[in-house]
Amino acid sequence: MKITTATKHFTSPLYLESGRILEPYDISYETYGELNEDKSNVIVICHALTGSHHVAGYYEDDKKPGWWDSLVGDGKCIDTKKYFVICSNVIGSCFGSTGPMSAKYPSSELYRLRFPVITISDMVKAQISLFDSLGIYEAHAIIGGSMGGMQALCYAVEYPHFTKRNIIIAATHATQPWAIAFNKVAREAIIKDPKFNGGMYDIKEIENNGLNGLAIGRMSGHISYLSENSMQNKFGRNYVETEGLYELFGRFQVERYLDYNGYNFSKWFDPLSYLYITKAINIFDASRNYDSLEDSLSHIEGKLTLLSIKSDNLFFKEEMEQIQKSMKMIGKSHLVDYNCIDSDYGHDAFLVEVDKFTSYISKALK
Amino acid sequence: MKITTATKHFTSPLYLESGRILEPYDISYETYGELNEDKSNVIVICHALTGSHHVAGYYEDDKKPGWWDSLVGDGKCIDTKKYFVICSNVIGSCFGSTGPMSAKYPSSELYRLRFPVITISDMVKAQISLFDSLGIYEAHAIIGGSMGGMQALCYAVEYPHFTKRNIIIAATHATQPWAIAFNKVAREAIIKDPKFNGGMYDIKEIENNGLNGLAIGRMSGHISYLSENSMQNKFGRNYVETEGLYELFGRFQVERYLDYNGYNFSKWFDPLSYLYITKAINIFDASRNYDSLEDSLSHIEGKLTLLSIKSDNLFFKEEMEQIQKSMKMIGKSHLVDYNCIDSDYGHDAFLVEVDKFTSYISKALK
Repeated sequence: MKITTATKHFTSPLYLESGRILEPYDISYETYGELNEDKSNVIVICHALTGSHHVAGYYEDDKKPGWWDSLVGDGKCIDTKKYFVICSNVIGSCFGSTGPMSAKYPSSELYRLRFPVITISDMVKAQISLFDSLGIYEAHAIIGGSMGGMQALCYAVEYPHFTKRNIIIAATHATQPWAIAFNKVAREAIIKDPKFNGGMYDIKEIENNGLNGLAIGRMSGHISYLSENSMQNKFGRNYVETEGLYELFGRFQVERYLDYNGYNFSKWFDPLSYLYITKAINIFDASRNYDSLEDSLSHIEGKLTLLSIKSDNLFFKEEMEQIQKSMKMIGKSHLVDYNCIDSDYGHDAFLVEVDKFTSYISKALK
Repeated sequence: MKITTATKHFTSPLYLESGRILEPYDISYETYGELNEDKSNVIVICHALTGSHHVAGYYEDDKKPGWWDSLVGDGKCIDTKKYFVICSNVIGSCFGSTGPMSAKYPSSELYRLRFPVITISDMVKAQISLFDSLGIYEAHAIIGGSMGGMQALCYAVEYPHFTKRNIIIAATHATQPWAIAFNKVAREAIIKDPKFNGGMYDIKEIENNGLNGLAIGRMSGHISYLSENSMQNKFGRNYVETEGLYELFGRFQVERYLDYNGYNFSKWFDPLSYLYITKAINIFDASRNYDSLEDSLSHIEGKLTLLSIKSDNLFFKEEMEQIQKSMKMIGKSHLVDYNCIDSDYGHDAFLVEVDKFTSYISKALK
């Protein structure tokens, strides 16, 4: 599989939904496979909150491959022998695309809290500018889970001719208060950490030691990514063997898991990016610039493959079903293929139980 | 309604499950109504994590009555004209009973982190010593929700002759990893707040300004106390009108609710008590000192009234059903009356939608 990693610099302005302008800006992206002659084999992948453009394969010294390696590769469900796959890091993130820790041109000072609030729609708009620059004006398909699914839905509504196949996994038409509440705990934990220092934190210090607030926020996130059953199966009430039951800080295995993942995460993800991206997720509402959800969806011309997860505790299956229902209300049922994946893994299922999704994705790609 | 508030001082040792000893110790309690001549009209109420012995009625200058005022009072479901109701503050808490911020006798220094880990069983044992001192050797009924329900179950197993009627609401037979994870976020937020200072925090400072970590922890708790539907109905996607959608720190109403309740809470509850009581909840397992849950429940001789809440996201109804199933396995079905309350309010329903519980409670008290 041929992998290319690059960062594209744009000097033209990106007009944001808020009315503010991002200029200049960078987009980092990765491609897999080769673009065919008539450019008809492009598949766009959109990543989630803490994801990156590194979808598949290994970087040098990597212990783990990209985040959707089980789905994307030579001979895999998204077959890189056949398709030219591209994923870009969303603006606002911290893996090469312009975000709050980028320099605010023309100075060399970082944006930090002066970075504009961005939306899912802004992320997609930036991606379209990247594709334009690559001479790509349409895609065979777009696919994404969680925040990636929001982007895929946004493509379908706002760029109805860009692709005929939108695969939306474990997402929602509009973020509900339950999900906003989980983000709130994380956002508050970050902001109130003294080391956050009003956004003026010491980058080296965070890279070396992490930010406790971000770790605690990640723990809150993990609860919403798992399900009560997956926690039950994975941890049960097992206690860490070397710790005492009657020690105040003795831990259950589920606590050790949250510690490990929370504190590790806080060393590799940027706190301000976490604030900006969760803000984008919170304010996502496919109907915002329309009279109603139905009005919004009426712009769709491509096929929607909607895959919800039965045990998803972040974006409930009913939220995906609402998209299906609204499409039905406007006489577009024929454009929708909805399936609920029977997995116990909760929201994370689209990352950890990929084999339950492949048949639906393969069908959608045909 | 006659209300009495008192604190009883015990100089005898309280032998804890951990092997440690609490000596001396205090228990604060409140009573409602009057004890009848043959002491046959006692109802014991057990409070939840952040509750207190102040169940009903108003203190001077109080804006709100006690936490279960809608259930307890003259002519109410738990009728204080008829019953003598007693509720005590659990040991480990911060409303008068001995806890981590009590002086470690004989010094005047506070326990803080030297306080022993306590269990639900220890809380109940301390209550029994209080009742002994009052000459009360049996109760007409015991009732509690959430952690109060754990105590009621503990009474049924460990003091099977103390009462014939155990009413257990929105609790579990053993705390599951999902609930432990919510507590983990809270515990971590508290411990990592620099003002917590390894447990040596400045009491006055906390009383005046609260502890951010405890506020964040309370927000995590609130998510588990509500349900996705109750949040949907209460807040929807409504935004705080005076805040900007494209301001990074602009808030949805659900965020404002969490801010308000979190930061208020952190001024009236003690951080160390929160750590000790969540530890007691985490390690609660009715089967721990027995071969199995069935073995544990086989000691029960009184009637169990089990009331779960359909939308409870903290202690799922399946956990209450497990108690029913295990009782059936050991041929004690006749002692169980299980009902699932159809409420959208989530775990909090037993506090906010009391009228859905009253008919079951009245029946159980007969």
